[in-house]
Formats: sequence, structure tokens, C-alpha cells
Amino acid sequence: MTNKIKPYKKEFDCSYTLGASVTIELLKIRPDIVDGVYIHSSYRDGDGLSELCGRLHIPCVHSDKAFNIVSPKENCFVMGVVRKYTDTISRDEPHVVLVNPSDMGNLGTIIRTMAGMNLKSLAVIEPAADIWHPKTIRAGMGAVFHLHFEKFNAFDEYREKFPQHVPFPFMLSGAAAPEDIPPCPLFSLVFGNEAHGLDESFSHIGRCVRIPSNGDIDSFNLSVAAGIGMYEFGRRNNLI
Amino acid sequence: MTNKIKPYKKEFDCSYTLGASVTIELLKIRPDIVDGVYIHSSYRDGDGLSELCGRLHIPCVHSDKAFNIVSPKENCFVMGVVRKYTDTISRDEPHVVLVNPSDMGNLGTIIRTMAGMNLKSLAVIEPAADIWHPKTIRAGMGAVFHLHFEKFNAFDEYREKFPQHVPFPFMLSGAAAPEDIPPCPLFSLVFGNEAHGLDESFSHIGRCVRIPSNGDIDSFNLSVAAGIGMYEFGRRNNLI
Repeated sequence: MTNKIKPYKKEFDCSYTLGASVTIELLKIRPDIVDGVYIHSSYRDGDGLSELCGRLHIPCVHSDKAFNIVSPKENCFVMGVVRKYTDTISRDEPHVVLVNPSDMGNLGTIIRTMAGMNLKSLAVIEPAADIWHPKTIRAGMGAVFHLHFEKFNAFDEYREKFPQHVPFPFMLSGAAAPEDIPPCPLFSLVFGNEAHGLDESFSHIGRCVRIPSNGDIDSFNLSVAAGIGMYEFGRRNNLI
Repeated sequence: MTNKIKPYKKEFDCSYTLGASVTIELLKIRPDIVDGVYIHSSYRDGDGLSELCGRLHIPCVHSDKAFNIVSPKENCFVMGVVRKYTDTISRDEPHVVLVNPSDMGNLGTIIRTMAGMNLKSLAVIEPAADIWHPKTIRAGMGAVFHLHFEKFNAFDEYREKFPQHVPFPFMLSGAAAPEDIPPCPLFSLVFGNEAHGLDESFSHIGRCVRIPSNGDIDSFNLSVAAGIGMYEFGRRNNLI
């Protein structure tokens, strides 16, 4: 397996989980997509990782070389090789829609928040940060394996596929606070790009929501705004 | 001024604001602590930066060398030199208390959220990420200049100085959701370290709060958890 290992690129069929906890999360939730696990000689297996791999019949390779290739700068001693797959989201559950998210840290953090709040369907409007990048997977602590996600080339393409969902664009020009919105089980929370937010055309797709703030900052960080929005909608619709 | 420029270190008396928007934020809010501004030859001054410096009588140096020294890897064309100061927080306002935050990105993001939510007093329990580090300042988009902050060597030292504040430790073992807490104007929201949270000794300092979540994730990202907590407490106490 070692001679196939290369530094990650977006066009690959595989990606990597970097670190013991995210790799164990992967093995517990989606062992069916794991090609193998690499273990560094510095790793002290207090997690029962080798045994877990054995039970799942997943190849477990002891090799330091693989880590030098994939994550030379990081303090990473366990790595999973995961086969990418094409996924779709449900018509019957609320959605989070991220329009052109550009930062892998934010994308991973939002995925982690979604998983914890029982929001299990993510639509990503491209161009977007790579959901499969090892940095995204790691920022999300492996929570992506709890979710379904689907990519779209444009927001309209998403809307056509899910016309029953009630979209709530989060915009600085929004008039409603999240807690002003009555319960609405089939909601779709729409968040824009870190730098530009959603453009004005989104103000017509549904009731615009704004996280209340004073004028001292231009906007909240995307992960924070999305977290507050998901929490309020999740609580009001009894998801958590 | 150029020959004094060095890569940032924690023990320095000065720090740097990296980027045009964060430097302009600094100049608008705290011109009194700015030693000077560097402008790279690639910068097209659409922001009226030179004029702003002139009006404030702040030296404005056109030099590319300074950027090579301070932020060689970043795409940064404007840089402010800011004198550090020792600050204290108010007895009459609610507080956010961060116990041993270790990540500069999280620290900056929390500062940005605080500024937007009219929570202007931050207590930091050391050891902690450097609030003055250029990365922290940048992650906060310069919001730190809207805040007061004070460092303490231990949580008890903070408590002794502010006995009137009602502390709410955010812990995974907490029984109350943020919205279960009645209005309480002089609150103190206490958040632990990214990896370990608050240890069990904090469960005795006040009513423990937990952001509701399912068992699919161990915890929320610190910036997200703090953002939700600040939002709920801020709304219920009419800060925003």
C-alpha cells in the first residue's frame, strides 16, 4: 500500500484522515470506505487501533515513510486512507446550504457543528473549499462521516431539486433575528462566502435573517454565524 | 523606523497589524498606540490610508523590506506597528473568561464575536495564546481594539477581584442550556481550553451550562460554543 501514497490532491479518488481520533471516528462510522490505516513508529496504541483494524479486516501498515509524504510538517502518527464517494442529501430533512465557502477550517467547523445539532444534510454550491481535503476532515474532527452532502454548480440547481424546502438566507441586510422565525421543520439555512457573504439576489429567495450585532464589526466569522443560526433553528424545531 | 523591524516575538513591546482592513480599524479606534504604518509597493491605496495617517500625524513608510521580515509568506501589503499596553476590565459590565485558550485563531474569533455583541470585557487566564500576536489580531479583524482585556495567573485571582460577577462555567457535564438561565446582568461566561475544556473543579463555581448536542461529536469548536453562549446571554440580557 505504501508505494501508492502521495501528497493529497483534489482530483484523487482517495483522501486521508490525519490523527488517531479522526481515524478512529472514520473506522467506527464508515469502515466500508477505508482502504487502510498507517501507524507511525512513535504511536503508542492506547486506543486499541490495531485491534479495531483487525476486527474490521482493514489493512494496518506500520510505516513512517507515509507520514513524511502526506503530512511532513504535522505531528501526526495515525492516518487512514479513505475512498471518496458521491453522496446525495435527503428531501425530508432540513438542510444547510453553503454558497462558495472558501476556507477549509470553516467548512470543517460547520460540518462538526451540524453533526452535533442533528443537521445531517449539507449542500455545497461550487466553487468551494474541498470537503474531502485532509484539512477539512480534520477541522471537522471526522464529523463529515456522520453527514450526507451534495455538491451543486449553482444555487438555482439546488432550489430546483428541493422546491419544498423553505430557504432562509443569512445576510447583513436581513431584518429578522433567528429567534423571530416561527418553527418550520423543512428549513434550509443559506450562508455565503467568508469575504462577500450572499449577494443581493439572495434577498428574494426567502425571509432574510441577520445575527444581531452592533456596528463595531463588519460581520461575524462564518463558523460562528452559522453556529448561532443552526442552534436557534435547531432548538426551535426540536432537532436538539 | 525600518531598521527596528523584527519578526514578532511575545516579549516585544510592540506588535503588528497585518493587512489594510485591520490596520485601518486600528487607526480609527486607537491612533494613540500606533507607532507607524508600512505600505508595500504593491498596495493600491483605495482606502485613503496615506491621507488618514497624515491627518493623524502617524509616520507612513513605503518599504517592501519590512514585509519580508515580518510576514514573508503572507499576501500582506499594509502593516501597522502598535505599542502594547496593559489593560484592565470593568467591574460594572459582564465578562467573558477564557481559561487557557491555546489557539490564536479561536482567541481572535472570540474577540471578534465579543465586539459585535457588546461584550467588551475579556479576562484571560494564563497560560494562554498571545492576545497580541499578529495572528490573533488578524483572526479578530482588529476587534481587540474595541475591547478591554485583563490577564490573570489563575481563575481564583480573577474571582477575588470580581466577586460580584455571577460565573457560568460552560462544561460538557452542565445540566442547563443557555436559554434556561434567567436574565442576569452581571454575568461571567467561563470557557475552557480547546482540548480539555474546564476541569471538574469549575462545576462548583456556579450553574453549569452546556450547549445541547447529540452524542455524534465530543464537543463543539470553542469559537462556536462561545459564540452560541454569548449570543444567548447577550440577547436575554438586552446587550444586543
